[in-house]
Amino acid sequence: MVLRYSHRSNSRDSSIVSAIRALAPLLNDRTIISFAAGVPNPETFPAEALAAAAAAVLRDLPTRALQYDVTRGYEPLRGKIASRGAARGLAGGAADVILTTGSQQALDLASRVLLDPGDVVLVEVPTYVGALVTLAARRARPVGVRRDRDGIDLDHLESTVRRLRAEGARVKALYAIPNFQNPSGLAMSRAAKDSLAGALARLDLLLLEDDPYGEVSFGTVETLDVDVVPIAVREPDRTLYFGSFSKTLAAGFRTGWMQGPPALLAKMELAKQAADLCSSTFNAAVIDAYLSANDYDAHLSRLRGFYRGRKEVLLGAMAERFPKSISWTDPPGGLFTWVTLPEGADAKALLPKCVASTRTAYVPGESFVVEGDGRRFLRMTFAKESKEKLREGVRRLGEFFRAEIA
Amino acid sequence: MVLRYSHRSNSRDSSIVSAIRALAPLLNDRTIISFAAGVPNPETFPAEALAAAAAAVLRDLPTRALQYDVTRGYEPLRGKIASRGAARGLAGGAADVILTTGSQQALDLASRVLLDPGDVVLVEVPTYVGALVTLAARRARPVGVRRDRDGIDLDHLESTVRRLRAEGARVKALYAIPNFQNPSGLAMSRAAKDSLAGALARLDLLLLEDDPYGEVSFGTVETLDVDVVPIAVREPDRTLYFGSFSKTLAAGFRTGWMQGPPALLAKMELAKQAADLCSSTFNAAVIDAYLSANDYDAHLSRLRGFYRGRKEVLLGAMAERFPKSISWTDPPGGLFTWVTLPEGADAKALLPKCVASTRTAYVPGESFVVEGDGRRFLRMTFAKESKEKLREGVRRLGEFFRAEIA
Repeated sequence: MVLRYSHRSNSRDSSIVSAIRALAPLLNDRTIISFAAGVPNPETFPAEALAAAAAAVLRDLPTRALQYDVTRGYEPLRGKIASRGAARGLAGGAADVILTTGSQQALDLASRVLLDPGDVVLVEVPTYVGALVTLAARRARPVGVRRDRDGIDLDHLESTVRRLRAEGARVKALYAIPNFQNPSGLAMSRAAKDSLAGALARLDLLLLEDDPYGEVSFGTVETLDVDVVPIAVREPDRTLYFGSFSKTLAAGFRTGWMQGPPALLAKMELAKQAADLCSSTFNAAVIDAYLSANDYDAHLSRLRGFYRGRKEVLLGAMAERFPKSISWTDPPGGLFTWVTLPEGADAKALLPKCVASTRTAYVPGESFVVEGDGRRFLRMTFAKESKEKLREGVRRLGEFFRAEIA
Repeated sequence: MVLRYSHRSNSRDSSIVSAIRALAPLLNDRTIISFAAGVPNPETFPAEALAAAAAAVLRDLPTRALQYDVTRGYEPLRGKIASRGAARGLAGGAADVILTTGSQQALDLASRVLLDPGDVVLVEVPTYVGALVTLAARRARPVGVRRDRDGIDLDHLESTVRRLRAEGARVKALYAIPNFQNPSGLAMSRAAKDSLAGALARLDLLLLEDDPYGEVSFGTVETLDVDVVPIAVREPDRTLYFGSFSKTLAAGFRTGWMQGPPALLAKMELAKQAADLCSSTFNAAVIDAYLSANDYDAHLSRLRGFYRGRKEVLLGAMAERFPKSISWTDPPGGLFTWVTLPEGADAKALLPKCVASTRTAYVPGESFVVEGDGRRFLRMTFAKESKEKLREGVRRLGEFFRAEIA
C-alpha cells in the first residue's frame, strides 16, 4: 500500500540524520582508531556494583521493580536525585522530578509540550546534533546564537531575539548545554551563567538546560572560572533542567530526568504518559540501590580522573603532532574537544580519505552548526580509545592534516 | 513567567486523562479490593530467573549491556522476537524489529510518523484508553467502529470509512487489539480476522495491531474459534504489529517492540531516534539472557493457568452474586472482563458510593468508549486480587448493585 505519512514525518529525512547515520559503519569498525564516538567509555561503568544492586533489587523488591510505576517514575530514585540537586542549589523534592528515557526524551517531551511547527528555539553554535534531530522532528526552527570560550554572546542573543520577535516569530526557548558541552567541551563561566540568567529574565525566555556532563568536571583548568551550578538555580522559574546517568553510571539504563517549575512539570507528565506511560522501573530501582550502597561521589571522582587523563594525552599529542594552523578547545570536563581547521578546509570532504589512509575517524562539525559555515570544524572524543591508541591516532591524523591542509 | 505551550499541549488536559488519574488514589489504597487495576500480577513475573539473567548479563557482557545501542535496539533480542514471530507466521528477521518502551511507545511513534492533527484513526468500541490518550496527544480524531463478541462489525467499518472519506476526512489507520482486548477481554475469531484482513485491503487501510495480550490465551473457551495468529500474518504490507513483554515477563522492563513493512519501520526508526535515541540496552539484554536460559513457553503456560484460574473464580462469583440485569464478557484470555449494567445505570456516578460502602473499586467504562453512551459499562480485572478477595469483593459488589440498580 502507499503509506500516507504525517507532514512531520515527510519533512524530516534531514541532512542531519543522514550525516550521523553515515558514520555508523565507522563507529563499529574495530580496526579504526575512533575519535568519532559520542558515547562514554564502558570501562567507567561500575559493573560489579551494579550487578550487586540488581541482585538486591530482585531479591528485596521484585514485585515493585518489575511492575509499572507512576508516570513520574520510581519515587526513591526521584528523592535521591532531588537531594543531589538540592546540594547543588536546585529547588524541589521528589515530586518535582520526572524520570525520562535519557535526557534526550526530556528534550523530546519539552518539544511536544512547548513547540508548534515553526516555533523558534535558540541554540548555541555549535550545539548537540541530537537536539537538532529532536527539534527537526517537531518541525521547530533552530536559530543559532554565537558563543565563545566562556559562554553565550549575550549581545547576539538579545539582538537575535528582538529581531525574531519583530519579524513575528514565536521564540519559545533557548536550548543550551552549559557544562562541558557536546560538541565543544566548553563550560560557561560563573559570570557568563549569571549574565545569561539575567538575559533570560529580560527577554522573558525559557531555558532548556541540558546537563548530562555537569558531573564530569575535570576541575583542573585554572584559567576558567568553571562553575557547574545549574542556571536553573539562578532562574528556577524560567528553566527546565535535564540530567542523566548515561555519562556517569551507565548509558544502557537510559535513565535521565527533568526538574522544573511545577506547572510545566505537570504538562510534561501528561506528555510522558502519552509517550510511554513511564520509564523502566527496574533500571530506576537498580540505580537507586546502587546509590544507596555505594559512594557515588567517589565513583564520580574516579570517572573524572579517567577522562581527565585521556584528555591530557589527546591534547598533548595534538599539540605535538598537529600543524600550527589547527586549533582546538581545552575542555574543562566532558568527553569532547572541538577542532578548528584553517579557513577553506572541509572536514566532511576530508573524512573518507582520512579513514582510508589513516584508519582514524572524527565527526565533521557541520551537523552541529546551524548558522554560518561549519565546514572547518570537527569533533574529537578522548573517551573511547586507550592512551596508546590516542597517541597513535593523533600521530596519523597529524601526518594526514600536514599533507592535506597545512 | 507565563509559559507558552504548544497547541497540542493546550488541548490535551482531556477528560480521558483526568478520569484515569482520578482513580490513582483508589489503586494505591491497599484496604480496597481492587477490580480496577490495569496491570499484570507481579506474582507471575519470574523474579528468580530474571535475577540469574541479570547476573549473567553483568558478568558476561557488561560493556555492551550498559552502553547505548543502535536505535532499533539490542540485536540478539530482536532476533529472538523475530524467531518467535516467525513461529506464529510473522515475516521478517531481527532487522525488521524495533524495540520500544512498551507497546505504548510503539503507538506513540506510529502516531508521530503517520498522523497530522485532525487525521482520523478508527478504534474499536470499546478500546484501550491509553491509546486514546496517545491519539489525543497527537490531536488525532478517534472514530469508533462497533464490535461484537467475535470481532469488528465490518459493515459498520466500511460504511464509516466511506462516509468519512466522502466528508474529506483523512482516514489514516485502524487501531485494534485483536486478542483479549483491554478492556473487553474479547478476542477476534479466526473468521473475523480473515474478513478484517480483506476489509483492510478493500479500504486501503493501515492496521495498527496492538497485541500485548496475545500470549495470555486461556485456550479453554470451546465456543469461540480463538486464533491468536496476528492479522499482520494475513496482511503484512498493511499492518504495523506491536508486541510487549509487559504482561508476560515483567512490566517494569518497559520493553515492547514493533514489526512491520520495512519502509514504514525506517520512518519509525527515525522517530525513535528523535524521541529517545534507543530503549534500555540493559533490559533488553536481561530479557534476551532469560529467553536463552529458560523455557519461556513453559512459563507462559503457567502464567495462562494463573490468570485462567483467577478468571474462573471471578466469573463464577459474578454468576452467583450479581443481579440478572447485569451481564459481562467471558474473556478467552487477558486480564479483563467488560461488564454491562442495565439501561440507565451510570457506572461512574456509582463509583464513589461503591468505594465508600463496599471498599471495592472498578473502572467506569466511559473513558474506553469513543462513540455512543458508555455510562452503562465498567471494566473489572481478575489479575490483582487473590481468589479469596475476588470472591469477597464480588459478594460486596453484588449486594451493592442489587441495592442500587437491580
